[in-house]
Amino acid sequence: MAVLLAGHLRYDWSRPADPANDHLIFSKGHASPLVYAMFRAAGVIDDKELLTFRKLGSRLEGHPTPLLPWVDVATGSLGQGFPIAVGVALAGARVLRAPYRVWALLGDSESAEGSVWEAFERAGYEKLTNLTAIIDVNRLGQRGPTQLEWDTDTYAARAEAFGWEPLVVDGHDLAQIDDAFTRARGAERPCVVIARTKKGAGVSFIEDKPGWHGKTLDPEQTKQALAELGDTPSKTFAWQKPERWERPRLPREKPALKTYSEPVATRKAYGEALAALGAARGDVVVLDAEVSNSTHAEDFKKVAPERFFEMYIAEQQLVAAAVGMQVVGLVAFASTFAAFLTRAYDFIRMAAVSRANLRLSGSHAGVSIGEDGPSQMALEDLAMMRAVHGSTVLYPCDANQTAKLVVQMADREGISYIRTTREKTAPVYKPDEEFPIGGSKIVRGGGNDDRVTIVAAGITVHEAIKACDELEKDGITVRLIDLYSVKPIDAKALFAASAVTGGRFVVVEDHWPEGGLGDAVLAALAGDTRRGEVSLRYRHLAVRQMPGSGKPAELLDAAGISAKHIAKAARELAG
Amino acid sequence: MAVLLAGHLRYDWSRPADPANDHLIFSKGHASPLVYAMFRAAGVIDDKELLTFRKLGSRLEGHPTPLLPWVDVATGSLGQGFPIAVGVALAGARVLRAPYRVWALLGDSESAEGSVWEAFERAGYEKLTNLTAIIDVNRLGQRGPTQLEWDTDTYAARAEAFGWEPLVVDGHDLAQIDDAFTRARGAERPCVVIARTKKGAGVSFIEDKPGWHGKTLDPEQTKQALAELGDTPSKTFAWQKPERWERPRLPREKPALKTYSEPVATRKAYGEALAALGAARGDVVVLDAEVSNSTHAEDFKKVAPERFFEMYIAEQQLVAAAVGMQVVGLVAFASTFAAFLTRAYDFIRMAAVSRANLRLSGSHAGVSIGEDGPSQMALEDLAMMRAVHGSTVLYPCDANQTAKLVVQMADREGISYIRTTREKTAPVYKPDEEFPIGGSKIVRGGGNDDRVTIVAAGITVHEAIKACDELEKDGITVRLIDLYSVKPIDAKALFAASAVTGGRFVVVEDHWPEGGLGDAVLAALAGDTRRGEVSLRYRHLAVRQMPGSGKPAELLDAAGISAKHIAKAARELAG
Repeated sequence: MAVLLAGHLRYDWSRPADPANDHLIFSKGHASPLVYAMFRAAGVIDDKELLTFRKLGSRLEGHPTPLLPWVDVATGSLGQGFPIAVGVALAGARVLRAPYRVWALLGDSESAEGSVWEAFERAGYEKLTNLTAIIDVNRLGQRGPTQLEWDTDTYAARAEAFGWEPLVVDGHDLAQIDDAFTRARGAERPCVVIARTKKGAGVSFIEDKPGWHGKTLDPEQTKQALAELGDTPSKTFAWQKPERWERPRLPREKPALKTYSEPVATRKAYGEALAALGAARGDVVVLDAEVSNSTHAEDFKKVAPERFFEMYIAEQQLVAAAVGMQVVGLVAFASTFAAFLTRAYDFIRMAAVSRANLRLSGSHAGVSIGEDGPSQMALEDLAMMRAVHGSTVLYPCDANQTAKLVVQMADREGISYIRTTREKTAPVYKPDEEFPIGGSKIVRGGGNDDRVTIVAAGITVHEAIKACDELEKDGITVRLIDLYSVKPIDAKALFAASAVTGGRFVVVEDHWPEGGLGDAVLAALAGDTRRGEVSLRYRHLAVRQMPGSGKPAELLDAAGISAKHIAKAARELAG
Repeated sequence: MAVLLAGHLRYDWSRPADPANDHLIFSKGHASPLVYAMFRAAGVIDDKELLTFRKLGSRLEGHPTPLLPWVDVATGSLGQGFPIAVGVALAGARVLRAPYRVWALLGDSESAEGSVWEAFERAGYEKLTNLTAIIDVNRLGQRGPTQLEWDTDTYAARAEAFGWEPLVVDGHDLAQIDDAFTRARGAERPCVVIARTKKGAGVSFIEDKPGWHGKTLDPEQTKQALAELGDTPSKTFAWQKPERWERPRLPREKPALKTYSEPVATRKAYGEALAALGAARGDVVVLDAEVSNSTHAEDFKKVAPERFFEMYIAEQQLVAAAVGMQVVGLVAFASTFAAFLTRAYDFIRMAAVSRANLRLSGSHAGVSIGEDGPSQMALEDLAMMRAVHGSTVLYPCDANQTAKLVVQMADREGISYIRTTREKTAPVYKPDEEFPIGGSKIVRGGGNDDRVTIVAAGITVHEAIKACDELEKDGITVRLIDLYSVKPIDAKALFAASAVTGGRFVVVEDHWPEGGLGDAVLAALAGDTRRGEVSLRYRHLAVRQMPGSGKPAELLDAAGISAKHIAKAARELAG
């Protein structure tokens, strides 16, 4: 890191937002003392702040986060910084044509994470020569030796098989490192510097010994260590600014959305809204995990192929690359089947720690996908996405609504998620209707004689409409709320409905009973509002048995979330 | 597959539970028509059942599941069957010393999943010669060409770098395949048969053409395809039984649990309970992702090293291997930091589709871990695990309780999860206390003069106890419920408390507000019980801001979930 800082990194430490700056990502986030020491050596933090390490309120947390302006993304969950670096490099090479390089420091233990090989593959395939990885092969993990210990040849063979140029060095030989970085900057393939090191080098009682991971030294040990290392006063390094470079101005017009008057699947409307965004704005990029003909992200590819990224079936790299692209200010949408976003949950969770702006689309949600069976049915995605700090969770029921929500996602802060449906659904709304995030719509009823409130979203709105028709024949007036914004939730509309219908609610969702629409509605109604007592009569229709294959209508019915079941529950509540 | 079935698979199709049977896992689960055709060829399903494919109620779902007795695990989320096969092979080689071989069929697109490389690494490192992988390199993914197309040399180089012997064959040349399988059965490294194939081979208008993934043929196309393939009557293959082999009888005694009267971390009690189980039972295996000194799974390793599996930092392979081990009847516990189980959520979700019995332990949950910061704090694990079909979610507050719950997990069906805490916690219970899953404990109060119910679990029980002490001084009697079984939940105890305290509840959890204890309590109280109206006055204390580093007590306080905040909320509710 000293060689990098002094000789190779092009970074204006006084202007961390300079778009020409190189990017340095510590994929081994537990090396936070090292990255903070670099910041100290660069002169941007002082000794006093350095000593706030891991203390309450300090920017110098146990693992680095972007609370520090020189940190792009939070790391600490291994195998994430490297695939994110691939995203930063892809954005630089393919979208911005930026002069920056991306440097990623990995631990050797970390190479056990599959996501590291997703990153090697992606960067190798894309020939990202603006990316350099450095693996600190210190042969010791948290609890003992790593699998490969100092077998640098095997690291090299693996990297080479994934399209990289391996450069094996003695990680304590500054000249070798300097030479490797110079070669990396001029290579025609992405380079990985495989640095054989000794953990705790230079301190006799720690060097290459197990049992010191994450340990602090007592005062006596500290004294001895400093004596062995040479207790020199803190030094500030000279560093090198990047060449001046202006970020290209990317066009940003108002998108011309398609409007719909016929049945269209919300996933198709998602793709078409992306295409409209892509035509209007140069900062929008779209990534997909080899299912763009299912998620309909391919519609974007048709209008902006240079900003469409095929990530193949590697959902971790999919999300990581999107996080990397937002680091340099791009507006990234990433899509796959909603079920397969579970593959990237750790990356989504960490994106929240990174304070990233990220847009995710999960298609083929729920039993309503039909014949493909439960492996392809997301039934936990609402729970998963609600439990992400600061997230937005959207679940549209028709194409016009989808289009309006997708456009809002582009300008939304934090992590937003849109759940789309496989089957075509009839238009519920006119194209000029607005759907603010945090709002809801009353689809049926709305007067003071409503006897029951039905809350639905997405596919269940259509079942609920049929149920309302049935109930109306029986003279039972109900209020149907389309809760398209699951989070933030329209608590006001729920309170109002509760007041009219005497707390009678039927919530129906194509999701497991836990963590989805039902839990969201109850939390909003009972929530920490200090509004006093809430009284409820509640029926919750959700998927309670493991589904199988079948036609969409058959599966909705078998799960007890079809019109028939909704009408029955509402009738019972109406009394 | 024809060559495998006719010449290499040792499988008694009339006795799928024979422990000597080979295992065949379709990692490319979308090849379900192929695996079902094998079952037809083996004579265990008939033409009539074959034609129920993908229909409601059929065992022949869109992707294979263990509803069929010849299917070990559900697949359909790519990159899972192969690492599960590694688990089956590990169990056979290291625990059971079984004669069976494990065969895994992979797609080429699938090799983009990092989990595939976790599996290559694990099996290569462990030299699992009882495992053979077959990659169907048909060069076409769902929406177009794969990254490597027919570059079988690169597949071979990658496999070799991960310790495997690659055997490249023409996937339509039966003699070459037969030879490769013969070599694989005698090799000294695990072998991967890399089969170059044409998708849709033998049908001129489909062969090697894109756009046919998951498509069905119309009657005219069917006629032409059958004419080209030769429309022979269905055939049944002769197959070979395995040699007779008796599964070893594994000892199964009652574990001698440690008891606790001093503060001990629940993660430590987890490790010690595992050790007791390991000493008493030969069917218990433990897997950990290179943090066994933190999760305390290492305590098991000390008593049963031959049944402890170090999976290194590869959480997907960790969970997949545990799923594989339960396929052959072992009782698998898998542990890592709770935060990093998010890495394996897709595997956990799929394990439920597999009807697997799986025990997961997540340590270091919540802000109470302290200095390491948010990347290491699980704050979404309860939401994630509740939203798994048929799951059990446990969150003990002391060591005695932990021990009793771990023992119950060993005999629990489905997927059970225990959330443990980093810090030492004081004993709340005597060692002879029982903690049935689905139960709860009244820690304070319990009489008819309780004015507020506080619901806590794990670390917040200790904060709530302090709050109760404070409230008692003010003459406010509260009922404190320790909800150690988050799912299934003790709704009866909550109803009883609600009746006494007039629906006044404070729920406090070291978790995001969504999907955890609060949502679980509300769902239970309002739930689909047909018990009429429920009236609540509710305060929910949860982690609402992104935490940083700090001491555990500081972070609990900053998050608003410490004793002080609990007492305040209870006071407000008491009025």
